[in-house]
Amino acid sequence: MKILLIGASGTVGSAIDHELSQRHKIIRIGRKSGDFQVDISDSDSIRKLFEQTGNFDALICAAGSVNFVPLATMTAQDFELGLRDKLMGQVNLLLIGREFANDGASFTFTTGILSHDPIRTGSSAALVNGALDAFVRAAAIELPRGLRINSVSPNVLVEAMGSYAPYFRGFKPVPAADVALAYAKSVEGLQTGQTYRVG
Amino acid sequence: MKILLIGASGTVGSAIDHELSQRHKIIRIGRKSGDFQVDISDSDSIRKLFEQTGNFDALICAAGSVNFVPLATMTAQDFELGLRDKLMGQVNLLLIGREFANDGASFTFTTGILSHDPIRTGSSAALVNGALDAFVRAAAIELPRGLRINSVSPNVLVEAMGSYAPYFRGFKPVPAADVALAYAKSVEGLQTGQTYRVG
Ligand SMILES: NC(=O)c1ccc[n+]([C@@H]2O[C@H](COP(=O)([O-])OP(=O)(O)OC[C@H]3O[C@@H](n4cnc5c(N)ncnc54)[C@H](OP(=O)(O)O)[C@@H]3O)[C@@H](O)[C@H]2O)c1
Ligand SMILES: NC(=O)c1ccc[n+]([C@@H]2O[C@H](COP(=O)([O-])OP(=O)(O)OC[C@H]3O[C@@H](n4cnc5c(N)ncnc54)[C@H](OP(=O)(O)O)[C@@H]3O)[C@@H](O)[C@H]2O)c1
Repeated sequence: MKILLIGASGTVGSAIDHELSQRHKIIRIGRKSGDFQVDISDSDSIRKLFEQTGNFDALICAAGSVNFVPLATMTAQDFELGLRDKLMGQVNLLLIGREFANDGASFTFTTGILSHDPIRTGSSAALVNGALDAFVRAAAIELPRGLRINSVSPNVLVEAMGSYAPYFRGFKPVPAADVALAYAKSVEGLQTGQTYRVG
Repeated sequence: MKILLIGASGTVGSAIDHELSQRHKIIRIGRKSGDFQVDISDSDSIRKLFEQTGNFDALICAAGSVNFVPLATMTAQDFELGLRDKLMGQVNLLLIGREFANDGASFTFTTGILSHDPIRTGSSAALVNGALDAFVRAAAIELPRGLRINSVSPNVLVEAMGSYAPYFRGFKPVPAADVALAYAKSVEGLQTGQTYRVG
């Protein structure tokens, strides 16, 4: 399969790369790094990306930013990054990318544990993750041509605990390699409309 | 209790009014109808509302619009109404309303079944409902002064089947009076961070 991997250089993305490059052709995409560049928060940039990569069999997004801010000081403005980048960025990867998706191609998006196991400063992350997991369930039933869509919702990663540990006390971190398996299940399996919770 | 009820004239809101006005003082709010007017998609309008109503013990929002569009023709633009109105409208009712909330006051928002039981044209509704249900779980743990926040996620209402039936074939509609009970549980009970699924 020809797999577009957005966020290939990241903590999550590099583990997906390691898992799937054993069996497939990976096109590595980042904001600055990789074979191609894209800013997922910009629809024009997304369209330009697909014009460069051409058709694909699977698209994985392991990118997406949100603001972490204490609720006490949060304003509507603080939610904008999450809405434009991690949320609508991934929705737009489907809305635009479907034109370039081969029959039976899959879309796999990244959400996270904070939608159902919240932490301090995590209200925007929770909102965005919950939105995407629900979107995936709904979009799956309307997709034509055997197109599929799933999300992977990881716990905090072992490999991220260096910087994230203070925010995730008491969480049992999951190895990136285990998280990568969920992306393989989504891409190489046949399920659709699923959220794979890992860890 | 002094309860602000946004969307009081609606199918859901009028049932809430009937249930809670037996025991509490209801301030009825709508876009055009009611004791006070607000457009929840506009932060300035929200602030003006609270300056008029003054402090409150409970805020209920039974308003919020999204676009229903087949996924096949959907663009990013079609998601904007849901993001600005039903989603960030209700988030902003918390972000701004907390300044006017008495100690122990509750916020109760309205989502809906489409986040987990999707229908054709429902991908924006699903996204918004999933976002809010997750936001409520996360925001609840950061609220000070005993402030509480819950959402009510109703099935389609019996009273709405006149126009909605073609979209909800096979769904067992729930009486508005049963949905109203969930709002009473949120307002008159002590739970927080909950999503009450009704029907
Ligand atoms: N790390 C965790 O423990 C964890 C746990 C659960 C969920 N997640 C979620 O997983 C996703 C990835 O997290 P991560 O920790 O792997 O991130 P990361 O290590 O910071 O890597 C981010 C990757 O995404 C790319 N990227 C960032 N913004 C982009 C944009 N606007 N457009 C296109 N590409 C962009 C980066 O490219 P460049 O390197 O070129 O800038 C990089 O390849 C996030 O949504 C995060 O919330 C992470
Ligand atoms: N009806 C159902 O079966 C059902 C099922 C599940 C979930 N829901 C959800 O419940 C909510 C209410 O639905 P409904 O069927 O009761 O709606 P409805 O009958 O159309 O009533 C809407 C109410 O909200 C007010 N309103 C509308 N837009 C507003 C805005 N931007 N700012 C402030 N107020 C606004 C209206 O005021 P005016 O009358 O003054 O315009 C009216 O009071 C929606 O979010 C809907 O998705 C409904």
